[in-house]
Amino acid sequence: MPLQECEKLYSKIFPFWDKLNREDQELLCLHTSDAKYAKGENIHGSNRECTGGILVRKGSIRIYLLSEEGKEVTISRLYSGDTCMLGASCVLKSITFDVFMDATEDTECYIIDGPALAAVNKHSVYAENYALNIVVSRFSDVMWIMQQILFLSFDRRLAIFLHDEMSRTGSTTIHMTHDQIAKYMGSAREVVSRMLKYFAAEGIVEHSRGGIKIIDKKRLQALALNQ
Amino acid sequence: MPLQECEKLYSKIFPFWDKLNREDQELLCLHTSDAKYAKGENIHGSNRECTGGILVRKGSIRIYLLSEEGKEVTISRLYSGDTCMLGASCVLKSITFDVFMDATEDTECYIIDGPALAAVNKHSVYAENYALNIVVSRFSDVMWIMQQILFLSFDRRLAIFLHDEMSRTGSTTIHMTHDQIAKYMGSAREVVSRMLKYFAAEGIVEHSRGGIKIIDKKRLQALALNQ
Repeated sequence: MPLQECEKLYSKIFPFWDKLNREDQELLCLHTSDAKYAKGENIHGSNRECTGGILVRKGSIRIYLLSEEGKEVTISRLYSGDTCMLGASCVLKSITFDVFMDATEDTECYIIDGPALAAVNKHSVYAENYALNIVVSRFSDVMWIMQQILFLSFDRRLAIFLHDEMSRTGSTTIHMTHDQIAKYMGSAREVVSRMLKYFAAEGIVEHSRGGIKIIDKKRLQALALNQ
Repeated sequence: MPLQECEKLYSKIFPFWDKLNREDQELLCLHTSDAKYAKGENIHGSNRECTGGILVRKGSIRIYLLSEEGKEVTISRLYSGDTCMLGASCVLKSITFDVFMDATEDTECYIIDGPALAAVNKHSVYAENYALNIVVSRFSDVMWIMQQILFLSFDRRLAIFLHDEMSRTGSTTIHMTHDQIAKYMGSAREVVSRMLKYFAAEGIVEHSRGGIKIIDKKRLQALALNQ
């Protein structure tokens, strides 16, 4: 991205931009790279390196935990316009855990190189606070997911998931396989299939070409709200 | 606490102290209160109010999630000298989740009133930076616990718990009931009892007066490290 274009973009995205000196503004822009990822490609985590700051231009990213045995639990997702600092543990020393990120569709990002970001954060407490606030919002996501996993029965969790997907995409058809849903929910495909079969028997969903069609929104919502 | 004593204490604890103006220093001190909690008493969460910043002087605090049905999962613990901002969601807007805190023994704290802390954070980007960093470190704790709960088998989790307690207290006797251990681990008493019976049968622990005595440290460690 040309320097001028970068400065225009960053002055809109970053509330701390005007508080940076000229050198730091240029440092961030000169160390921003375009990155394209194919659907399913790993963006962060597999090589244990510090990716840096991620700005999603197009597409979507799944952030997950991975066990030694290969079990995955999705903790958050990023969409176009989102910024993420969880892949920047070399920038924020208080992050001492590892997450993985994969592209869930063809995805384009700007990546701000870790060392450049670290240098700017060191010069500007405003830049650092911006990054920390982003991490804390993500923390709130994780706590929500954790409460879901720990406390809710699976029928309610699945109802919430389908309802959220419906609201997010604006479509009553969820274009995902059982296996994909299981991955998002930190569950197993068999468990998802069994519950969807039950939902279908109850007339809440039906299996359609290329996905799951929600046919009784009211009951789905009631289930999600535990009514 | 007299103003002078407070200023002396805070100048040691808070790295941002010298960057505050005189009014903000006084504001923090004048809105600091002494609080004493009996063992088991709720410190934060039950009244859904913003407690503010917590500094533990003596004792210990358990931070946990609570489900609507009353199930608890411990996510972090505070000891003497620790500072916590998770009870200050009125100060840090990016905290959008609720946690509960109970005293696990007779505990003394300084509480910095939420609105005063919020005002100082608004004036000083350095004070905000300190609070955010504390929250992010706590996030790292939570991620560790989450990985434990999601991915580890229960024998290994219990071994890690006993090993950590042994290291922390410097004693091979863990002075806790099965019920207390279950609460810390987000598990059920029956599950803990069953596993401890197995550990005893294997000669790793024995039940002693007032607690669980670790008699084979090497095997406990091997279990904890999955060797």
